[in-house]
Amino acid sequence: MSTIAATPKPPYYAVIFTSHRTDGDNGYGDMVTRMVELAAQQPGYLGIESAREHLGITVSYWSDLESIKNWKADLEHKRAQEYGHEKWYSSFKVRISKVERDYGI
Amino acid sequence: MSTIAATPKPPYYAVIFTSHRTDGDNGYGDMVTRMVELAAQQPGYLGIESAREHLGITVSYWSDLESIKNWKADLEHKRAQEYGHEKWYSSFKVRISKVERDYGI
Repeated sequence: MSTIAATPKPPYYAVIFTSHRTDGDNGYGDMVTRMVELAAQQPGYLGIESAREHLGITVSYWSDLESIKNWKADLEHKRAQEYGHEKWYSSFKVRISKVERDYGI
Repeated sequence: MSTIAATPKPPYYAVIFTSHRTDGDNGYGDMVTRMVELAAQQPGYLGIESAREHLGITVSYWSDLESIKNWKADLEHKRAQEYGHEKWYSSFKVRISKVERDYGI
């Protein structure tokens, strides 16, 4: 169950992953559980937020671009990315962004 | 029904709004409809993506910081922000970020 990530003071990075799913699970649920667990073990990981209705949005937060690059290159994550292309997502977009300012309650 | 926003080539800006709702509607649904409509009329608006489960995530995209500032200062939007504080959200976080790179299928 996703909650608001307790990120530090900016600047830090946000990877905004927006996707539409294909029909059927095809191992997707297990992969999400594993990737969330694995991401949290990476150097530079700051948190993750996720919600899905018609559209799925997952935002992961990172201390720097190097950490994002290393996570993208992780072998188990790369296999998940391949499956994502092949069977889990009908379309997706990844946006790498630098958080400059934040506020809230 | 939210879909992946057709944003231009980076750089551009993303406002990541993450929130937990209070119980009951209290006019929230009507406000969302109106704010989505009103945001789309603002100069510099590029698109919006939204999903809510336990957590709500709305990402709006903008051409520059000035457009974000003007939208935040819009009078009708300001009233919605006040109601958000007072009754619609138990907690929220707004993150202003600069999209440096994107890719997808």
